[in-house]
Amino acid sequence: MKWNKDKNKKFTHKRFEIEAEEINIGAITAENIDNHFSIKGFIDKIQQTAGPTVFFISDGTGMLALKGFIGPGARAYPEINEQDAVKVKLKLSDFRGSLEGEISYISKLSEQEKTDLINKIKETERKRSMVNFSSFLIKDKILDKLKDRLLKAAIEIKLAIIQNRPLIVRHHNDADGYSAGYSLERAIIPLIEKQHGGGKSPWEYYTRAPCAAPFYELDDSIRDTAHSLANEAKFSNKMPLIVIADNGSSQEDLLAIMQGKVHGIDFIVVDHHFFDKDVISPNTLVHINPFLVGEDGTKFSAGMLCSELAKLINPEANIEQIPAMAGLADRIDNPKAIEDYLNIAKKKGYTKELLLKIASVIDFVSSKLRFMEAREYIEVLFGEPMEKQKELIALLDPYIKNLESKGKEIARKAAKIEKIKDTTLQLLFIEENFRRGFYPKPGKCTGLIHDDIQITNKLTKVITAGVLQDAFTMRATEEANFSVHELIAYLNKNIPEAFVEGGGHKNAGAITFIPSKQKEVLEELRNYIKSTKSKS
Amino acid sequence: MKWNKDKNKKFTHKRFEIEAEEINIGAITAENIDNHFSIKGFIDKIQQTAGPTVFFISDGTGMLALKGFIGPGARAYPEINEQDAVKVKLKLSDFRGSLEGEISYISKLSEQEKTDLINKIKETERKRSMVNFSSFLIKDKILDKLKDRLLKAAIEIKLAIIQNRPLIVRHHNDADGYSAGYSLERAIIPLIEKQHGGGKSPWEYYTRAPCAAPFYELDDSIRDTAHSLANEAKFSNKMPLIVIADNGSSQEDLLAIMQGKVHGIDFIVVDHHFFDKDVISPNTLVHINPFLVGEDGTKFSAGMLCSELAKLINPEANIEQIPAMAGLADRIDNPKAIEDYLNIAKKKGYTKELLLKIASVIDFVSSKLRFMEAREYIEVLFGEPMEKQKELIALLDPYIKNLESKGKEIARKAAKIEKIKDTTLQLLFIEENFRRGFYPKPGKCTGLIHDDIQITNKLTKVITAGVLQDAFTMRATEEANFSVHELIAYLNKNIPEAFVEGGGHKNAGAITFIPSKQKEVLEELRNYIKSTKSKS
Amino acid sequence: MKWNKDKNKKFTHKRFEIEAEEINIGAITAENIDNHFSIKGFIDKIQQTAGPTVFFISDGTGMLALKGFIGPGARAYPEINEQDAVKVKLKLSDFRGSLEGEISYISKLSEQEKTDLINKIKETERKRSMVNFSSFLIKDKILDKLKDRLLKAAIEIKLAIIQNRPLIVRHHNDADGYSAGYSLERAIIPLIEKQHGGGKSPWEYYTRAPCAAPFYELDDSIRDTAHSLANEAKFSNKMPLIVIADNGSSQEDLLAIMQGKVHGIDFIVVDHHFFDKDVISPNTLVHINPFLVGEDGTKFSAGMLCSELAKLINPEANIEQIPAMAGLADRIDNPKAIEDYLNIAKKKGYTKELLLKIASVIDFVSSKLRFMEAREYIEVLFGEPMEKQKELIALLDPYIKNLESKGKEIARKAAKIEKIKDTTLQLLFIEENFRRGFYPKPGKCTGLIHDDIQITNKLTKVITAGVLQDAFTMRATEEANFSVHELIAYLNKNIPEAFVEGGGHKNAGAITFIPSKQKEVLEELRNYIKSTKSKS
Repeated sequence: MKWNKDKNKKFTHKRFEIEAEEINIGAITAENIDNHFSIKGFIDKIQQTAGPTVFFISDGTGMLALKGFIGPGARAYPEINEQDAVKVKLKLSDFRGSLEGEISYISKLSEQEKTDLINKIKETERKRSMVNFSSFLIKDKILDKLKDRLLKAAIEIKLAIIQNRPLIVRHHNDADGYSAGYSLERAIIPLIEKQHGGGKSPWEYYTRAPCAAPFYELDDSIRDTAHSLANEAKFSNKMPLIVIADNGSSQEDLLAIMQGKVHGIDFIVVDHHFFDKDVISPNTLVHINPFLVGEDGTKFSAGMLCSELAKLINPEANIEQIPAMAGLADRIDNPKAIEDYLNIAKKKGYTKELLLKIASVIDFVSSKLRFMEAREYIEVLFGEPMEKQKELIALLDPYIKNLESKGKEIARKAAKIEKIKDTTLQLLFIEENFRRGFYPKPGKCTGLIHDDIQITNKLTKVITAGVLQDAFTMRATEEANFSVHELIAYLNKNIPEAFVEGGGHKNAGAITFIPSKQKEVLEELRNYIKSTKSKS
Repeated sequence: MKWNKDKNKKFTHKRFEIEAEEINIGAITAENIDNHFSIKGFIDKIQQTAGPTVFFISDGTGMLALKGFIGPGARAYPEINEQDAVKVKLKLSDFRGSLEGEISYISKLSEQEKTDLINKIKETERKRSMVNFSSFLIKDKILDKLKDRLLKAAIEIKLAIIQNRPLIVRHHNDADGYSAGYSLERAIIPLIEKQHGGGKSPWEYYTRAPCAAPFYELDDSIRDTAHSLANEAKFSNKMPLIVIADNGSSQEDLLAIMQGKVHGIDFIVVDHHFFDKDVISPNTLVHINPFLVGEDGTKFSAGMLCSELAKLINPEANIEQIPAMAGLADRIDNPKAIEDYLNIAKKKGYTKELLLKIASVIDFVSSKLRFMEAREYIEVLFGEPMEKQKELIALLDPYIKNLESKGKEIARKAAKIEKIKDTTLQLLFIEENFRRGFYPKPGKCTGLIHDDIQITNKLTKVITAGVLQDAFTMRATEEANFSVHELIAYLNKNIPEAFVEGGGHKNAGAITFIPSKQKEVLEELRNYIKSTKSKS
Repeated sequence: MKWNKDKNKKFTHKRFEIEAEEINIGAITAENIDNHFSIKGFIDKIQQTAGPTVFFISDGTGMLALKGFIGPGARAYPEINEQDAVKVKLKLSDFRGSLEGEISYISKLSEQEKTDLINKIKETERKRSMVNFSSFLIKDKILDKLKDRLLKAAIEIKLAIIQNRPLIVRHHNDADGYSAGYSLERAIIPLIEKQHGGGKSPWEYYTRAPCAAPFYELDDSIRDTAHSLANEAKFSNKMPLIVIADNGSSQEDLLAIMQGKVHGIDFIVVDHHFFDKDVISPNTLVHINPFLVGEDGTKFSAGMLCSELAKLINPEANIEQIPAMAGLADRIDNPKAIEDYLNIAKKKGYTKELLLKIASVIDFVSSKLRFMEAREYIEVLFGEPMEKQKELIALLDPYIKNLESKGKEIARKAAKIEKIKDTTLQLLFIEENFRRGFYPKPGKCTGLIHDDIQITNKLTKVITAGVLQDAFTMRATEEANFSVHELIAYLNKNIPEAFVEGGGHKNAGAITFIPSKQKEVLEELRNYIKSTKSKS
């Protein structure tokens, strides 16, 4: 791209030995073309083109491409390698519209100079990644208790962007999870564009993807690692910082996180799910979860937490309606917080009714997209632009409601109801009653009739199990005094040959077992219910 | 990468104030380099490079990239936005072999000038997208009745190409569907290459993909939309025109079409399947289907219709053997039309026998490719080049015939035959008798023994059901007086708890139900057959 | 692409008739810029840009891009086509750092000149692809007998690289298969980088992928073909040479190979699995398998063979630890060879214990990656770099061991043991006892309890069958005198309506059948065992 700013160029500067002024890369502008400078920095990567050798240097304030040429395809300055701390004299020029430096002199720094440089870079990065906290969107003690962690997470994410490190956001595959992932996305992408000057950078330095399972699995981790290693090999990318949102706090996530760390990936976890023991904090840069500060995850969802985090990362992130929706979608039991978030959402034109519909459409669409990122489609779902969002909701919501009411009707007719002491056990045999791929998914159908029977039959002690060949998905009312963790322990004691595993919240969870033991497990579930002391 | 081979360059041309001649973009050639022109047009897209700002202007006769520069990465002419109607003075230059304009002056048009420009562009586009109709490949009253719709479809497709709009062709996943999609492809791609000057444009502005289901599902629509929105964000592409071929006419397709329309996608449907009520016409640019004009879809296949449409779009499209093959593959009941198409095919060296083999190989290969476009592989299957096509058919046809005869043998041994009044009901339990992934697929195996029993046992009243855990795939002879639509109504009346759904042609269709109700549905199928009046 | 807009340029260098020296492309360097040469060669591909026409010429020593210009986008020298043998006069220049030629004269060669050129190119290529054999890594008669085939394979692979032909390596989806594929990769990629000057060439000219099935299926072949045809259309790539490793020798692979050959793909097979009849040799460039030279495939694994082949292709390939691991993973019964390979591995710091762990992790990770190439991740698994490999093994090995011991425990509790004459038949019903997606996979679980019962119960005559709805996966001890091939023949005689198929080694194999015949097939398996003469 030649736009020719200097017709006489070749004659305007004399090629004397020019005293080069020392400058920070961030201070260089197009005004400086044809000027001579001296820079100290680290060589981030070296690309050998068929023409010159290109050295990418960064000094904490920015990055600049430097060219050394000794012959087509020949490696210039072979003594200079990636990661070296160097001093360069250069003439600033432009190549197809981008600023670059032509090297006239380059050498490695002394140990002392290198130490000074590292300190200067650290200081610069520290300043640039600083977060100015004024207040959260709402007032809540959970946020207050998590404030330091949220600030640290915001700083680490900003730092990754400044260090040209790719970011991967991995989230739970439901409306709260999407809210968590998307609110971070709205904060991060503008900063990446600013850092890299737009262009394709939002795709090169950022990915978001749902997890298939309700945790960050080893499969996810191996795939993320494989892709990151490929990008490192092909494009000299750095290994990423991965933010796990609405997943990540439990024992099940540990191996996946450890696997990524072997390859130089760092992790931040923002979750609100229950865990037995915190094995995650020691293995992440930051771990955020209400349970870590003596609070309950049912009172603050991941989408709510991530929206607050997004505002810390980037106060201009346009996510005001998201925490209310996330909280409603996850049935967060914190009326004051939900009301406060709803009031914020209302100012943007979102009623509670609309937010519930959006959440339902996100749930549905996520089941269609599965592993696709579909970044721009998700933007529409979240209201960019809002008029298309409303059109889409108006189209899909009645369709989904219809599927749900059909699902509920099938489930209601199929459910087997038993009385065990004063507890009602409701069994829904999934495979026998729903075609493969049926929407709503088994867990949701189970939830629908679990809610329904309480209202219809005026019951308060209810346990509902969606029964699959090798798994139960379970819901329980508070008064049923049910604990999936106790159940698992009970089953493993009484029927170890079923190899029961599972987990979840107190009143909602899932267990798996050996298919041939389904009947025995079901019988032992009844025995377990018999054995529990009723709360009343 | 400039290390400058021509030092005297800057002095060779003088920059006077030159009176710029007004010109249409389409009239500009390389002869005009270094000349000054004035152009009126719309700004299609604006790209901010790290150097100049690039404005893409089009005036209905072509598109030109214009560069404005005020500093590296700085937005030139910030008052000019996408969609603006403008007048530009420019000097024509070349950048790496492409023509482009250097802006010396740009301003928005007045309202009157804009209206004039719109009218001029419309008129130009109208002329360029005009279709010169002489005759169809064959004479048939269905074609005559659909002529206006076919012409309109051809014009809309040509218009989309002229307006630099991407085209997506989505088709049914069988030999007729592939024929429909591929014949359009052979017409469209050369026009795209002409419009965009070749290069990667056939991949950037055109996609073809089979649908997994026998209609254009919401899943397809959401994926197409997500990809199109991504291309819009990354490459400033327009939202596409989607042509649905051999699918698209039924109620089941409506939601998917509506979903795409929310995002600015337009649709054309070319189908020959039965529909209860036409809900598609009001929501598409054009809807083509024999049933719309009082004719029967069993008399003209989608591949036949699309081949005729292809010839209207591009008379040079090399598709002469395709309609015969499509008609044979779909067992079209229109002997005169099939014979006429066969005669055309024969001139290109295709016998009926060869066409049937090709159709069978396409069916088989489509089951392997699943969602892959495999554009060039499909070209070989359709005879580009013909000698490789013949080699491939010679290799695969005996293999497929062998699979089919094995499938038929298994099916024949497994089939349960019952007599219900004077009708023969043949049941083939699929899951019990075929391994998962078996080829031919359940529907085809069912069809094979349905045909077989009529010949072997000299029967005319036969109903054959391929029985799956949660679905039947059905075939019936004309004399069996069977209607899948009646059956569905019957089942929903007598066994509503089975939640039966389905559809299809009169004598071929499929129903789905709740797995646990399979036995009851089967029993009610028998009752339904008992209840129907025999035709004889 | 600059074709000179500067009108004065023509005068800066004088266009006399310069006597152009004839030169080989391989001898051209950047020193020669602005010099005039004459070249004889073949036109490999022609690209019409929006500016000049680019002709890629090669003469066996290298490739050069030549530019002809008669106007933007106009085809220069339309009489010259791809595959033509030509003589060119050119001036060497550089375009963005790559050497290229500006055509001053081009014409087709006479028939005689063309023949001479072909001979010269063949001779050049022959020399460049020559393999200097000194010795194999170890001494083994199987290698000696296969030496000529291994040399031919190495030459063909080197030739493909020299001819700018893409290479695809397809391998079995287990530790031996990965070892086979990866050792070839380590040999091939550096040669591709040398041939194409690095950059993105290792991704453009090389792919490796596991096969899903235990042979190279028609599905694999159609996909590889579709991708290769697409690359031919988009990038003018040649059709590839495919190396099938640890698969490929059996009847089941034939159709897939034939399918590829229709499209101009060539094949090399390196396998060690048993085959009934060699139908592969006549259809491949080279077929390597111990059974071809009267030896037994259980004595030399594909990974061992491919490591030796890798060393012939590229003596610098860093694969010394791989054959030992491959042999151990595949339980190769050749103690001397294994020991020799282990000694080589030990010098690189790999103990037998570590190699077994690596093999186990490769098996596990391959089940997660499925069809992903994950090139760089696989590199880490194979020890690039070794410290990350060790970290990864230390992390994953205990996790996998735990899964395996759980799998073994489930299997042991579930296994049904019968005595048939003096043979022990052990049945493991897979679907009833393992959740879908369970690791270890059915075959491995079957193997685990097959090994276990021999040790625990001190048995020598054991047959173990993993029973699926439509398949058995089988293991037998040597003394059980079992043959999967005999079993298949027996079943097809006694229960033809089960449509039994299958294959495998003598003492390990799999059969498939119609699901509804499972019980009958099981009964006939018992009868078969009864009918076999015990060895003792």
